[in-house]
Amino acid sequence: MKKAVVLLSGGMDSTTTLAVAKSQGFLCHALTVSYGQRHNAELEAARRIVKAFDVVEHRLVQVDFNQWGGSALTDRAIEVPNKATASIPVTYVPARNTIFLALALSWAEVIDAYDLFIGINAVDYSGYPDCRPLFIETFENLANVATKKGVEGHSFKVQAPLLDLSKAEIVRLGKQLGVDFAMTVTCYQADNNGRACGVCEACQLRRQGFLEAGLDDPTIYYR
Amino acid sequence: MKKAVVLLSGGMDSTTTLAVAKSQGFLCHALTVSYGQRHNAELEAARRIVKAFDVVEHRLVQVDFNQWGGSALTDRAIEVPNKATASIPVTYVPARNTIFLALALSWAEVIDAYDLFIGINAVDYSGYPDCRPLFIETFENLANVATKKGVEGHSFKVQAPLLDLSKAEIVRLGKQLGVDFAMTVTCYQADNNGRACGVCEACQLRRQGFLEAGLDDPTIYYR
Repeated sequence: MKKAVVLLSGGMDSTTTLAVAKSQGFLCHALTVSYGQRHNAELEAARRIVKAFDVVEHRLVQVDFNQWGGSALTDRAIEVPNKATASIPVTYVPARNTIFLALALSWAEVIDAYDLFIGINAVDYSGYPDCRPLFIETFENLANVATKKGVEGHSFKVQAPLLDLSKAEIVRLGKQLGVDFAMTVTCYQADNNGRACGVCEACQLRRQGFLEAGLDDPTIYYR
Repeated sequence: MKKAVVLLSGGMDSTTTLAVAKSQGFLCHALTVSYGQRHNAELEAARRIVKAFDVVEHRLVQVDFNQWGGSALTDRAIEVPNKATASIPVTYVPARNTIFLALALSWAEVIDAYDLFIGINAVDYSGYPDCRPLFIETFENLANVATKKGVEGHSFKVQAPLLDLSKAEIVRLGKQLGVDFAMTVTCYQADNNGRACGVCEACQLRRQGFLEAGLDDPTIYYR
């Protein structure tokens, strides 16, 4: 069986991605990155999810790059917006997925895993540059140039199985693969119990997903 | 004046790189990454160096990716070798420069800096894959795809001014730009006072550099 490193935030997309990796027969090593995001409830969610999915190993890496802010998710001075904007929104975290994949790559190289799973999505998303197919392709290229294993002829793959799915399709896929969405936290400003605001863009995309999928939304709101 | 983010480990190469960036008129923002490396004395060195060079700002980021080991620099179970090897040595830290540049990129994007300085060198080096020109070029490409500023038309540059220099040339260049090499720590297993072992590959390359440059080596050894 092949090993995979799966980036797991505790949200619905990364949880569904983990379910996909498992269903494809990978031995899953889950990596959660704590970067001072507002939604710390996600970390608790990640801990519940790895138990439910019986992963081989779960690692939590702390990286305090929230210290320079620059995003509504890491800087409390920037308000989380309630609606989608025409341009890339303030919830964009500078170079976040580059940092995440770099960490996943480092761990993967140590354990001889060549598949890096990330739950990014380019359909019902916020227009983040590091959620695009071009980003994945470019990172994959870098991974094979930057590492000893890459130079030795191994080939790292960035797997983004949700890339072309709508939120509704993600909900259906997760359901089909046994994801308990009640465990997941999506909201950008969830409270400590993982209850959601219901108004941020992430909440709106999630709600719409359940609605379009025709499935019950287990999300609990605090207002 | 243009801003730059300069990766500063506290070693001779990154210190000379900082001196180059200053001499080119950049407003320097120094970034030191603490990843549980053996040579913590480097961090102390970095603190002295930023004072000497009067940088605009110095940030220290903690990233505990040493938790998965995989290198003699982060895993105490792996011994630091005393001689060069034909293949990439065990002091290679998986995806280190990718993680470093990803963090530098994140900070740079927040402060509107488009030049990322890194003291990598492909002449008197250990054959690390992430010290090659191809790595720099590939990361630069990624930086412009992965970020909001890149998508908006700004162009990030990875500046590696030492890339084609021998260790002797680095010593001469640093000296010329006012680097006090006594402040820098190169050794992979320096003691808490920054004194060097004199036998690891990094020590050997440094010693050889001073010798070939015909300059006094201020390094203090503990054995």
